[in-house]
Amino acid sequence: MSLRDKACISGVGETAYQRGATGTAFELQLEASLKAIADAGLRPREIDGVIPIGIVSGTADDFIDNLGFDDLRFSALIPHGGASPVMALQAAAAAVAAGACNHVLITFGRNVSAAAASGRAGARIHSMPQFHYVTEFEYPIGAIAPAQLYAPMARRHMEIYGTTSEQFGEVAVSCREHALLNDNALMKKPITLDDHRNSRMIADPFRLLDCCLESDGGAAIVVSSADAARDTRHRRVFISGVAEGHPDSPGSITQRPDMTRLGVEKAAQRCFRMAGVTPQDIDFAELYDCFTYVVICQLEALGFCAKGEGGPYVQGGRLRLGGELPTNTHGGLMSQAHVWGLNHIVEAVRQLRGDAGRAQVKDAELGLVTGYGDMGDGAVAILRRG
Amino acid sequence: MSLRDKACISGVGETAYQRGATGTAFELQLEASLKAIADAGLRPREIDGVIPIGIVSGTADDFIDNLGFDDLRFSALIPHGGASPVMALQAAAAAVAAGACNHVLITFGRNVSAAAASGRAGARIHSMPQFHYVTEFEYPIGAIAPAQLYAPMARRHMEIYGTTSEQFGEVAVSCREHALLNDNALMKKPITLDDHRNSRMIADPFRLLDCCLESDGGAAIVVSSADAARDTRHRRVFISGVAEGHPDSPGSITQRPDMTRLGVEKAAQRCFRMAGVTPQDIDFAELYDCFTYVVICQLEALGFCAKGEGGPYVQGGRLRLGGELPTNTHGGLMSQAHVWGLNHIVEAVRQLRGDAGRAQVKDAELGLVTGYGDMGDGAVAILRRG
Repeated sequence: MSLRDKACISGVGETAYQRGATGTAFELQLEASLKAIADAGLRPREIDGVIPIGIVSGTADDFIDNLGFDDLRFSALIPHGGASPVMALQAAAAAVAAGACNHVLITFGRNVSAAAASGRAGARIHSMPQFHYVTEFEYPIGAIAPAQLYAPMARRHMEIYGTTSEQFGEVAVSCREHALLNDNALMKKPITLDDHRNSRMIADPFRLLDCCLESDGGAAIVVSSADAARDTRHRRVFISGVAEGHPDSPGSITQRPDMTRLGVEKAAQRCFRMAGVTPQDIDFAELYDCFTYVVICQLEALGFCAKGEGGPYVQGGRLRLGGELPTNTHGGLMSQAHVWGLNHIVEAVRQLRGDAGRAQVKDAELGLVTGYGDMGDGAVAILRRG
Repeated sequence: MSLRDKACISGVGETAYQRGATGTAFELQLEASLKAIADAGLRPREIDGVIPIGIVSGTADDFIDNLGFDDLRFSALIPHGGASPVMALQAAAAAVAAGACNHVLITFGRNVSAAAASGRAGARIHSMPQFHYVTEFEYPIGAIAPAQLYAPMARRHMEIYGTTSEQFGEVAVSCREHALLNDNALMKKPITLDDHRNSRMIADPFRLLDCCLESDGGAAIVVSSADAARDTRHRRVFISGVAEGHPDSPGSITQRPDMTRLGVEKAAQRCFRMAGVTPQDIDFAELYDCFTYVVICQLEALGFCAKGEGGPYVQGGRLRLGGELPTNTHGGLMSQAHVWGLNHIVEAVRQLRGDAGRAQVKDAELGLVTGYGDMGDGAVAILRRG
């Protein structure tokens, strides 16, 4: 059996994205969840599966208590950072295809402002029960923040393939351009390549404008079996392909055989094969963008260009609306908001419904979304307008 | 689509169960995992799915790093305490049935001795990011240990149905009797109903011998698609039925509409329907037994007897080898070991392979296993000899 077109995304919801939100991360999740369920035209009690994202998002029982599900039949938790939302698409699609349940809620929320104010943001990463967090080779030399951990991957790509900081800048500028079309994006001011070049160095080669936002907010989607989705409110958006992949040697970035090879590369081949399409068929992409470089290396891993050619590929406006592959049409993590990439799935669904407003890609029929997290885990989904 | 017979359990593994183990919980998991993979006749690199149990067990990447999986295609985490192993059976069966992967490792390990010695055991429950842990109505009155939290459920059952402490004792005595046949059981001395009656009160109505063990050890199983399992070493053991269920009002035990109604009740109906069998067809049962009472109420929820008749049902040796429903033939959590019930699945597989040694149920063809955790979540599986 193949998961191709066995499941649909039937509902999407987001809170306002902001800094300094007053709700807890869990309250933000509940708000987004209710919006997604309503968007699908469902009542909360019809939700019979739930996949919270991350290990601090509550578990199934929290959602039963707070949303009133009365017969939850499937639950799991996906703890792989930004790779989780798209990994959760695979798990949810498998659950509904197997008949274990009909409607799976996938949800995530965060309030980094509150965590930072309480001093808990830093504490969290060290207390996380995830042993693979590069504690053996990277922590001892002082690399503990994500920018420090991704920097050597980017530097390696620059050394081998001649990728330039200006090419990184192209990614930042096009994300910002799209964010300006999105009323629910944090970033409101345009930026230029000069702004990127002049922004301060964070962790060489990453400048400030190579780094994504941190923000407060919640997002949620509902995945339904293709049959059950017939009764939902909107045009169906099919999950035509979905796959996950993990890097070699996930526990250490610098000890990997190839630092530029990520889990997305393994997932991409499986995903395109399942969907029966090629990169040339894709109308737009929402690529996980914790750092500009990560977009470039994913474009290669996905086969939009050859290995090493991601830098030149992004030049000349190719990622912008009207370009060959409009990418992060909502502004992405770079300029809309950072909810571990669940906002990328929400945007892809809007595009395929024709609801993307000023950022609408004309006649969008096939969209690609990636998730990327924990320093190399990846997942890819190809969504199709029903 | 139904999950009936789409997946098999192809490998099982356990460490020695003990107190004072020197390995970490994760090392114990790895040992059990390697045994389960070898038992299936697979090499670690053939494992392409993993479901760790609980949120302190490591994530997929830890297993890639330590066991050398080279192309992991599915991962999730199930965080529902003792309900997790059987819930994980459902998720794994869905994943292999959907074609997402072929062989899923499910594994768990714990070293409570080390945690207790370091003073971290108590800290853990309070720092767990699980909001539903009965913090609103139960914690404030001083009920924080599991025995205290389960006690009112048992007391309620006694009040409504006349269930007696002696009936609880029957469960303890039959588990112990079976443990004495098991070389890998912690408990080595026989007990009588008098011993139960004379054991000290822990949380009324639970006496010491109503409470399960705490122990160190690891267990693991491999779930394979029915096709992929053809190439494994042993006779296939099919997952004929599997389902999960959650209680009403999971976040508070005392605020539930019916304190004796648990998630297992909802799961049981779905599981039997999927497998196309009735309780009368079941040759043996491995029922989650954190407390004696929980076995009694599950027997009712599963339909082995009517609601309220679980107490009389367990009398007269019905749960013992040679009885009508041999139950916890390995000794259970009560007398073998406490690895969140993953040992119950291991034992069921051994029974269905005919490998259960002195505790073998003659001609066992259909076995039932439950998981039960987080104060009411439940899962049920019916396993069939292939």
